[in-house]
Order: sequence, then C-alpha cells, then structure tokens
Amino acid sequence: MSGNTFGRVLRLTTYGESHGAGIGGILDGCPAGLPLSEADMQHDLDLRKPGQGPTATTRKESDTVRILSGVFEGRTTGTPIAFHIANENQRSQDYGNLAEVFRPGHADWGFFQKFQGLRDHRGGGRSSGRETAARVAAGAVARLLLATHDIRVDAAAVELGGIAVPPEERELSEAFSRPYYAASAAVVSRWDERVAEARKAGDTLGGIVEIRARNVPPGWGEPAFDKLDACLAHALMGVGAVKGVEVGDGFAAARSTGSANNDPLTPEGFASNHAGGILGGISSGQEIVLRAAVKPIASIAREQRTIDREGRPATVLVGGRHDLSAIPRIVPVLRAMTALTLADALLLQARMAALPEDVLPRPRPAALRDGRW
Amino acid sequence: MSGNTFGRVLRLTTYGESHGAGIGGILDGCPAGLPLSEADMQHDLDLRKPGQGPTATTRKESDTVRILSGVFEGRTTGTPIAFHIANENQRSQDYGNLAEVFRPGHADWGFFQKFQGLRDHRGGGRSSGRETAARVAAGAVARLLLATHDIRVDAAAVELGGIAVPPEERELSEAFSRPYYAASAAVVSRWDERVAEARKAGDTLGGIVEIRARNVPPGWGEPAFDKLDACLAHALMGVGAVKGVEVGDGFAAARSTGSANNDPLTPEGFASNHAGGILGGISSGQEIVLRAAVKPIASIAREQRTIDREGRPATVLVGGRHDLSAIPRIVPVLRAMTALTLADALLLQARMAALPEDVLPRPRPAALRDGRW
Amino acid sequence: MSGNTFGRVLRLTTYGESHGAGIGGILDGCPAGLPLSEADMQHDLDLRKPGQGPTATTRKESDTVRILSGVFEGRTTGTPIAFHIANENQRSQDYGNLAEVFRPGHADWGFFQKFQGLRDHRGGGRSSGRETAARVAAGAVARLLLATHDIRVDAAAVELGGIAVPPEERELSEAFSRPYYAASAAVVSRWDERVAEARKAGDTLGGIVEIRARNVPPGWGEPAFDKLDACLAHALMGVGAVKGVEVGDGFAAARSTGSANNDPLTPEGFASNHAGGILGGISSGQEIVLRAAVKPIASIAREQRTIDREGRPATVLVGGRHDLSAIPRIVPVLRAMTALTLADALLLQARMAALPEDVLPRPRPAALRDGRW
Amino acid sequence: MSGNTFGRVLRLTTYGESHGAGIGGILDGCPAGLPLSEADMQHDLDLRKPGQGPTATTRKESDTVRILSGVFEGRTTGTPIAFHIANENQRSQDYGNLAEVFRPGHADWGFFQKFQGLRDHRGGGRSSGRETAARVAAGAVARLLLATHDIRVDAAAVELGGIAVPPEERELSEAFSRPYYAASAAVVSRWDERVAEARKAGDTLGGIVEIRARNVPPGWGEPAFDKLDACLAHALMGVGAVKGVEVGDGFAAARSTGSANNDPLTPEGFASNHAGGILGGISSGQEIVLRAAVKPIASIAREQRTIDREGRPATVLVGGRHDLSAIPRIVPVLRAMTALTLADALLLQARMAALPEDVLPRPRPAALRDGRW
Repeated sequence: MSGNTFGRVLRLTTYGESHGAGIGGILDGCPAGLPLSEADMQHDLDLRKPGQGPTATTRKESDTVRILSGVFEGRTTGTPIAFHIANENQRSQDYGNLAEVFRPGHADWGFFQKFQGLRDHRGGGRSSGRETAARVAAGAVARLLLATHDIRVDAAAVELGGIAVPPEERELSEAFSRPYYAASAAVVSRWDERVAEARKAGDTLGGIVEIRARNVPPGWGEPAFDKLDACLAHALMGVGAVKGVEVGDGFAAARSTGSANNDPLTPEGFASNHAGGILGGISSGQEIVLRAAVKPIASIAREQRTIDREGRPATVLVGGRHDLSAIPRIVPVLRAMTALTLADALLLQARMAALPEDVLPRPRPAALRDGRW
Repeated sequence: MSGNTFGRVLRLTTYGESHGAGIGGILDGCPAGLPLSEADMQHDLDLRKPGQGPTATTRKESDTVRILSGVFEGRTTGTPIAFHIANENQRSQDYGNLAEVFRPGHADWGFFQKFQGLRDHRGGGRSSGRETAARVAAGAVARLLLATHDIRVDAAAVELGGIAVPPEERELSEAFSRPYYAASAAVVSRWDERVAEARKAGDTLGGIVEIRARNVPPGWGEPAFDKLDACLAHALMGVGAVKGVEVGDGFAAARSTGSANNDPLTPEGFASNHAGGILGGISSGQEIVLRAAVKPIASIAREQRTIDREGRPATVLVGGRHDLSAIPRIVPVLRAMTALTLADALLLQARMAALPEDVLPRPRPAALRDGRW
Repeated sequence: MSGNTFGRVLRLTTYGESHGAGIGGILDGCPAGLPLSEADMQHDLDLRKPGQGPTATTRKESDTVRILSGVFEGRTTGTPIAFHIANENQRSQDYGNLAEVFRPGHADWGFFQKFQGLRDHRGGGRSSGRETAARVAAGAVARLLLATHDIRVDAAAVELGGIAVPPEERELSEAFSRPYYAASAAVVSRWDERVAEARKAGDTLGGIVEIRARNVPPGWGEPAFDKLDACLAHALMGVGAVKGVEVGDGFAAARSTGSANNDPLTPEGFASNHAGGILGGISSGQEIVLRAAVKPIASIAREQRTIDREGRPATVLVGGRHDLSAIPRIVPVLRAMTALTLADALLLQARMAALPEDVLPRPRPAALRDGRW
Repeated sequence: MSGNTFGRVLRLTTYGESHGAGIGGILDGCPAGLPLSEADMQHDLDLRKPGQGPTATTRKESDTVRILSGVFEGRTTGTPIAFHIANENQRSQDYGNLAEVFRPGHADWGFFQKFQGLRDHRGGGRSSGRETAARVAAGAVARLLLATHDIRVDAAAVELGGIAVPPEERELSEAFSRPYYAASAAVVSRWDERVAEARKAGDTLGGIVEIRARNVPPGWGEPAFDKLDACLAHALMGVGAVKGVEVGDGFAAARSTGSANNDPLTPEGFASNHAGGILGGISSGQEIVLRAAVKPIASIAREQRTIDREGRPATVLVGGRHDLSAIPRIVPVLRAMTALTLADALLLQARMAALPEDVLPRPRPAALRDGRW
C-alpha cells in the first residue's frame, strides 16, 4: 500500500537512505525450518556491492549484513526476519549543492514534488540505488526457499551499450563468474572497448538483463490481475533504471504470427518456448524467461542544464562516485526480485493444498497425476 | 491477494466466465459525488465489444452493462459500485471437444494444473478475453474521476503484423474514430492488406499499443516497490496477450547514453521526454508514455499439435468465433487499466493532504508553490 | 483497504443497498474442487431472512441467491464465486422523510459526514442490516470448506433483554431449530414475555450471541498483529449493532487470577478452557469460544429528538418495518463471519506446507508428530 | 497478510524476539513534514519499559530507541521510518528448561504447533510482551500525527484484580502521572493491598483499561468490514493478554433498550454517548470510548502442570523476572494501538479530498458545511 512492501504472503518491507544510518528490511512470511545464516545473504550482497567490475565507482562499502531476528539455531522460525546493513564511507559533502538543484534523469524532482519539498538530498536519499541492497539480502532467502524445491533463478547481462550477446550464445548459469556478469565470455572485450569509449566521453551506458527460472512447476500465478508475468513485471519495473520488461519473445512476439508463436504441446513437453514459460498468466512448467531494459546511469561526468528549488535555470555537475552503467550491479538485484516474486507465488499456490485429497473428484487426469512436466 | 482484485485505494474485483451467467465486478473506493451513469460505462464497453473492425469475429454480443449499487440520483455515493454484463449468444457446442485437449498458446494447460484438473473449458472460461469487459466498465469510472482533474488517457494501435506507424506520425486522441483504433489513418490500407493475407493463411497477428496520459501532476507513485511505472507494468502485463511493456524510450533507452537519454529541466519544463513522464518511479508532470507488446491471437484456423488430459498426443482445430488480432479490441482495455492505475495513484497521493498546512515548514520553494509544471 | 473486502487469502467483497437492485458479493480465493450449489447458500440465507421468529418485522423477502460464476458442474473452479440477491418488496415511500433527518442510533449521520452529504437514505442504503445477507451467503461456502476438515461452527443467542441462559445450560448445535436461535429451549417463554413487554412499550432489545468452533487444529493465527482472536474480533465487531467481543472467559478473565485462569496441559489435552481455544493469538486445538454483545435495534416505535440536514432541531418517528431485536437474525451472520475468518486462517496456514518435508529438522517432537490434540 | 504488519495507509511492520539482537519496526506511509525525534519515541517507551510501578518485574532495560531512516533535519521525509531497540540485560539461562516444556497460559504450545516444532523459547521469543515496545515507538509517531489535528488519545487502568474505579470518578488525561496509570488516585491504596495479597499468594492479576480519543471528526471508518470499531477491536485484541474489547456501553448495551441506548442529536451535539463515538462503524464526532479486558499474567510463581515436547506429563515453575500484572505497562501499548488505528483512518479518509470541490453538488447542507460538531 504505502509502497515499501513487496509481496503478498512472503512480504519484504525495506527502509533506508544512501547517507543515513543504513539500509535494511523485514522479510515476513517465510516458513519455519529453512536453514539460513548471514553468510547466505552476504554471498549475494557481495555480488552487488560497490566496486564490481569495469563499470564501477571507486566508492567502496563492505555492505556487511546483520540478521536481527527470525533465525534461531541456524533455521528460520517463521517469525519476521529483520536485517540491517550499516552505511560506511559516506562523503556527504559530495552532495552538498544537490539540495538546491535537481539532477536530470534522477528522482530528485519527483521526490521534491511528492513529499512537499522535503527530502534527504544526500546521494539521492531513499531514491538511491543503494536501496536495492535490501532487496538482494532478502532475495537470498527467497532463492534458498526456491532451492528446497529445486528451483533455480539465473541472470546475466545480454546487452551493453548496444552490443548484444546473440540469443544462441547466451549461458546464464555461470554469469556471475564473468566480467559484467555477462551471458558470454566472448562479448567481454567488445564491451570493454565500449566502456572505455563512454568513459572518455564522460558518458554512461545502458543495457539489457536476461533472467531465467528453471523447474518452476506449472500452475503458479493468480489470474486475472495477479498473473505471474504481471507480478514479475511489477517486480522488475520497480527497480530503478528499468524502463522495459518482456516475457519470452516479448516485443518480437508482436511481430510474429499465431502459427509461429504458439508452442505445441507434446507428450515429451512443449515443442518450443516462445511464451517464456508463462501462458495466460500461469506458469506452464517450462523455463521462465524475462528481459529487462536498463537505461544509462543518469549521473554523467558533464555539466547539465536544470533548475533550482525556486524554478530558476541552473547547471549541475554531479559529483559523488558513480558507476558508468547499472550493469553489472543490477544483475543480482533483478535476480533477487524474480526470486522474491516466485517464492511468493510458491507460498500462495500452497493454499491449494488446503482441500483434503478425498474431497477432490476421482479419477484425476493422468497429465496432472503424473506431474511429469 | 487472490488475484482478482486490482488497486489499493480504488479497488476493482472482477468475476465471470465466457459462457457462464455473465461477467462483472465491484469497484470499491470511488469518492462520493462523481456523476456516473450506465451510459458512461456503456460508451467504453461499445469500443471493446465483439465485432469491432476488420480483425473481428462474427460473434455478436451487446455487452449491456447494468449498475447494481453505489450510484444514487446520478452520483456515486462512496459505497461499492457493482456492475453486471450478462452473457448472450453463447454457442457452447463450439467448445465441446476442448474439455479433453489443451489449446496451444492458451491458458488451458495452466488452469488445468493450477486448479487440480477442474476448469470451465467453454470458451476459455475465466481465462477468456471476455473477462476484460469488466475492466473496461470500471475503467470508465476511473476515466471520469481523472477527468475531474483534467487528466486524459489516450490509446491507439501503433503497430500491426510488423507494420508500424512512425513515431512522428502518431496521433492518439482521435484513434477510436479510426479503423483498428490506429494511431494514423495513413497506415490503415497497409494493415488491411496484412490482415487479408493472414486471414487467407488461416493465421493471426500481433501488434503494439501505445498509451499516453496528459496532465498527470508531478508526485504520483510510491517508491520503492510501487513505483508508478511498476504499477502500470503490472496493470498492462496482466492483460492477456501482453508479453512486453515499456515506458518512454523503453528498450531503446538501453541502447542510448546518459547524455542523450537524460531530460534537462528548464524553467519552461523538461526539454525532452525520453523518460516517458516517470522518473525514479514518480510522475514528473510530463506526458506519461507507455507501450505494450501484444502477441498474435492463439486461436488460429489450422490444426495444431497438442496433448489430451491423459497426456496422449492429439490434434486440435479451435472452433468458435475468434478475432484475427487482439488489435483493436485490446486498445480500450489497456486504456482502462492505465486509467485505473492512475486513479488509484491519485487517491493514494491524496493522503499527503493529511498534514495541516500550518504544520509544514515555511517558506516553501517556489517550484513547488507555483505548481507551474 | 477500501472497506468492503474481508479476508486475506479467502477474500469476500460485497456490495448493495437496502433499496437498490440488490446485494451480493464476490468470494475470491476458494480452492477448486469444493462441491457447491445455490442450495448451500440458500440454506444459510433462509436462517437470516426477514420474518424470523418472535422479534420479526413484517417485511418479507425471499432472499433468493443466484451464483453467477466460479462453479462448474457442481464444484468450485478456483475462480471468483460471484452471487447476487435481488431486492424485493421494497416500500421506499416509508423512508421518504429520512432524506432530511438523521435517525438516532443509526449510521445516517456518519455516512452523511463521510460521503460529502451524499447518501442513499432509503432504508439506510448501504448501512442497512440487509448488507449482511451477502456475508451469510459467502459464509456458507466457508462453512463447507471448513467441513472438509471436520470443523464445525455453531452459534446461538445466550442472552436477550437482560435474561441469560446460564453457561452450564447452553447447547449450541441445535440452536437453529429453536425460537430465537436460543442456546436453550428453557429460556424461550421468559424471552417471549420480555419481547411482549418491549413491543408494548414501543421499545427494542439487545442481547448476547455465543459462537463456538470445534476441531480447529492448533497453529492457526498470525502473530503479532493478525492473531486469530484479533481477526475474529475484527470480523464480529464489523457486524452492525455489535458493541463488544470477548474470547473464552473474556471480561471475566480480567477479574480472575493467573492460577485460576491458566489452562494446564496434560497428555489427554488441556484440563480447562478459560482461554477459549486461543493462546497468544494462535489456536490451541481446543474449542474456540466467542461472545458478541448486540445493542438494541435503534429503530424504535417512538418519536425521537434529532436534527435535520441544516442542523436544526427536528423529530423523527422511524417508519418502515423493523425487527424488535437483532436477535435472532444476527446469529447466522456472526456464525458466517466466524467461518469466513477461520477458513481464511486455514488457507493462510497452508503456506507452512510449502517447505518440503525432507528440509525440516529430524527427529520431530512426538507431540507435533502425533497431532494427537 | 503475514501477520506482522498493521494498518492500510499508515503501515507498521515489526520484528524481534525477547532475547535476540533487539526489536524494532518500520513505519511506512507517514506524510512528509512531521517534526519527529528519537526523544518523541523515547517518551512513550519510558512509560512502558520494565520496572514500572508496584506490579513490576525487577528486570531492567533502558529500551533506548534509535531511528534508522525516514527523518531528515528533524522532520519526516515521507519515506519509511525504521527504528531499533537493542535488547539488554538478558539472562537466557532463566529460560533454559523452557525449550522442553510448554508454559500454561502462554503462546508456547501454539508457536510449537504453528512453526513445525521450531521456536526461540527464550523468554517467549517472538511471543514475548517485549514485542509491544515496537508498537509504542510507532504509536508515538501516530500520536504526533493526530496531534496536528488536535486529536488526543488518553488511556488509564480502570480496574485491577476485580476492584474498579467507578465510571463517574474516572479521569484519564493525567493517568500516566499516577501509580498503575490509574484512572483515579483514590483507588491506588486498595489496588496496593490487592497486589500485596496476590504477591504473597504467588499469583497474578488482570484488569481493565479504558481508552478515549477526543476531537476525532465525524466520518472516519470504512464500512462494511473495516468499520472504525472493527479496526480498533482488531488493534486491541491483537495485544497479548487482551481477551475482550468493547465500545461505548459495550456489553452493558446488550442489556439496555433502544429508547435508553439511542443518543439523540441536538443542534448542540449528541445528548448522550452510549455509542462511544462510533455509529454504524463511522466516527460520530463524539469522544471515542473503548475498554479492553486484560487477563492475569500467565507466569505465576507456582509450579504448574504441563507436558513436554514428547507429550509426556511434566511440571514447570516459570523462572525469569515477570510482572505481577500487565497493568500498568499495557496501558501505553493500548493507547499506541488506538493511535495507530486512528492515524491510519485519518490518512484513508483524506482520499475523500480527491474530488475537486467544484465537482461536488451544491448547495451543501449546513450541518456538513459548518463542521460545527
């Protein structure tokens, strides 16, 4: 309702600003019994922390997470899991002049208007990308929950600065071991060149991230409004810098025909996956395939036109220490949001277990009984 | 939560199947005092009803709506607005064999798995596109509510079967008077040819719809998770057949640079609108620009491979009376979902009025005080 | 959120006014496969319909329910169950003058203030007790859902006009076959006298209703805020005319001591049930015991002081056809709300089944494994 | 949904266990611009902290709160307000044996059953009354928000161990300056005697708390299900140890008659307040009056019968340092929950401002226009 909570049964509420005490969250609704430690969260946070790879800022933060509740003797207890990541290495003075002017491409203007002229301008305050650390920490729990059902979510950068990894060359499961969390090692040198070029120009780059989830069983998602793809779109579009989301063939499907786009069913499974694993808003049992369009970082190393709080013309040269692209750090964030959405769908679908078996009609169709897909 | 409710303060809950008693919904949370009649809903429903334009089915339904509550002496009373659209002209016999097999590209398989093998197979049951009539009826109320604030939502088809209206030729405000609800009259003859070609081939077409909202004030949207674009993506992706959503430059922004993609602020307003009216998830006061990718209709006039309830190979030739493309009938549906999302954001933002003026700090910045944007 | 929806996973949204087209609702989230017919709803509605027993109005309505969606071939499909009860036998002229004045003890004044002076004054409009028919219809589904788990909810009047059935004489399971839905046949003649006396005086009576639920397993309820008793209190206090709710010993517990009030655990079960089946907000496996205080009907047959829309003094003699007490018709309403709350808790608790058995620690304690309580 | 979030627009999510790192919460949805400091929260926390008055435990904790986000330069920013209260002075060894047995009257058994046998048994873990500190901290913000509208919430103990303060002697506004937070200084010596008696017997006491809210304008509350009294009942019954809630005359109203119970309207206001300020679930503009029945503390200083994890008979002598009554420490908790509920209703009602004035019908009735009540 108030915007800082995500999910229906598995619910994440987050807080924190770039230059305040820290950031964190409360994950409510996780079943009891899941083995969980701070190291599990830290593993994912380390993939997102400042200073990752060739597009990185020089800002360094250890992003050390502390679990405050909900875990006892190494397992979740079913009560809220709170966690906190203290801010470090803040240089608020870099942002001093930003109290007076609005950075183009940032949320400054919107926050100013929304919140009656009141805002924590330091580093973007609540609108800082730093907020996503809390998503990644919670996403680690969601990933563990999904793993108990053998479900795995992968993500990788498939395009940077206009240079794409061809679909047939994409390999996601090892992406976090590659520079840029790229979907292919072969693209790295070309991306290096593109990044060097942009850095020289004082400019920034956008890209595309692909996310895939394997072993999601058929039947997840809640029509009519909370279709699985609708919830995933909400999750991904809610990450700063994301300007587009597509499922399966996505925008290319708009140019296809029904005969080419339909995925035939066979006794061995679907014969193709143009749908990206979601049909009519419900998981089909195939791999779920998503892509998110990421705009270039708005903080460029050039002077830009803007206005000040009084509406007068001004210029701004954004200081601070900024990445040259949201890629690669946004990759674990988008993976986390996908995992949180799927784990929530898992728990919601569990309500179907509520009707005792002997109440259901018999005999049940083989395709359902075997669960072969 | 359970999937058939949309919105937070302005909440729409819908029901109904293609071949049951009818479809309808309850719109809760509309303020008292809004002038409203059945004719207002009917106007929008008529834009969506079967038999619209060159891609149409021969199925005819009047889709007559009846308001059951919440309106007294021509105005809303603040209590739930219930409405019902009776089903007519059903020919369930067209769907008899669909109890046994799953139509490729449809939700049949997902519903079968999700709901324990139980489903109303006639015409897709709850998963039928007919469900969207309830969205359009409620959307009419949302449009009226927005109109009291001079906010207007337009929508048009900008691409069909791979043939696009160039961005500079798009004109949305008159689209509902054109064939295909097209963004330009100039494209119609080429789309006619493309449709004739597909009909001859027993095939179907997809396309792209653009939606624009004017006069949305700055400050709407709830970070971090319920950003305005996240909620809009949820709304649009939750419409059957939509496989992608983008805001402003969308996927093209992923190929741009920060210097080109940032929209400079000037005393006269933003100098460009690459962001599509939403920055950091909050409306900027500029026009909101969205596009949705619509896949081809899954019901093609050809025999297709599939499986039956027992998992055995089968073929299916989908009978019934189907459109050749979701365009144009999906256009008013996407407009309705956008209007519902914005009206909900309007009501949610109203809570900011909750703090008395004299509690707020003074003096207030001119840019905010003037509300000039 | 907007007030006309109840529940979290099993969600009921209702609509309708006393003198409009009718009343009804949408029940979303019911699992697929539950046998359900209109007769199931009608059975419960008949217990609540006008003209029940010695305190009844002369207004007669058949309250015939029609299911509009969500049921196919005699079973729920997992999609929204919509139902409608048309209004009949309306005599709006009885209420003509009520547009100008506010009836004491009614919601008239509150609706007038809340909804900007706009309201359907006929028979109370949305604030009419008639609204509860939708709760009873949906409650019938909840009762069926609970019955598949052998859970049964009973309710009875235990006090009327100050005359109580002693606790040790209360028998709830047969109450609907007795006048006043009384907890004992022995009290009926004394209640008859009390009612005759009040009728002669042009006055009305209040009373107390007791509700009990058997076989609720231990573990339902969601601390900290959505404790099972908190949700039940919300459910019961949300019924018009209810001014108090208590669980187990309730207000009497406030006068007890810890040593007397604690319920000892023994291998055969709890040794007493002062807690009313709920400890720390979680069901204990014992019988759940609730009581609701019902105020006297506000529409008395006497002239009363009030004000008109302009704030001037006025008098009102409430016409229309009114019951002399909310008892007995409120009894099935309170049973329905209890059933809806418990069925929702059942579906929510089912999420705990989400973690595969082999992930949980072993060995498990015997008290849990045996499920003997 | 998942139980640890309260409210709809103003939403509090809490976490923490008695013997973990600490307790805290996130308050989301507070408007920007409210002056707020840690001292504001601390003031209320100090009223609740261990060691208050004659019924107190010897456990001492400073309950020092730290605000982690959402406040900038002394005012709220509209973003989530997170706060943390570190645990101190824990003596977990007092609770060692409680891992094996269930304390009668506590949530131990329910948590054990609900959460698959997993629980933090130390001091009750999440079910400890210590959880309510987070409610009090957030309630302080709600009280400040209400204060900007001149709304004040008072609370006091009106009964302890069966000894009541007569209604006509109750004075709430100064209660926090009296022992037991009593509604009258005159009762204190009798309560002292009753407490001494119970302490000698190794027993504990219950009581009744009254809460009153002044200056709540007419029109708050959301029928049909989220009536203002329904939400308040939810709020109060959700506090551990509360077994009953009543509004206005409450259970006494069940024994009254319509002619005596109705509150006549006059040009000077209502002539009486049997309704307790809420009619038909909507605030009437009169003082809101609530009472909560508080059971005796379950941890008595005597050996009690119980069972162990294997279901075998056992005895338990609860160690640790426990209060003799939840009174007085529960008084600020119930005040906080009332304030949170009312502040949420305030923000929700603010949505009514969403329709521009010139859209509403004219002329408007004087009773509404003057806002004289």
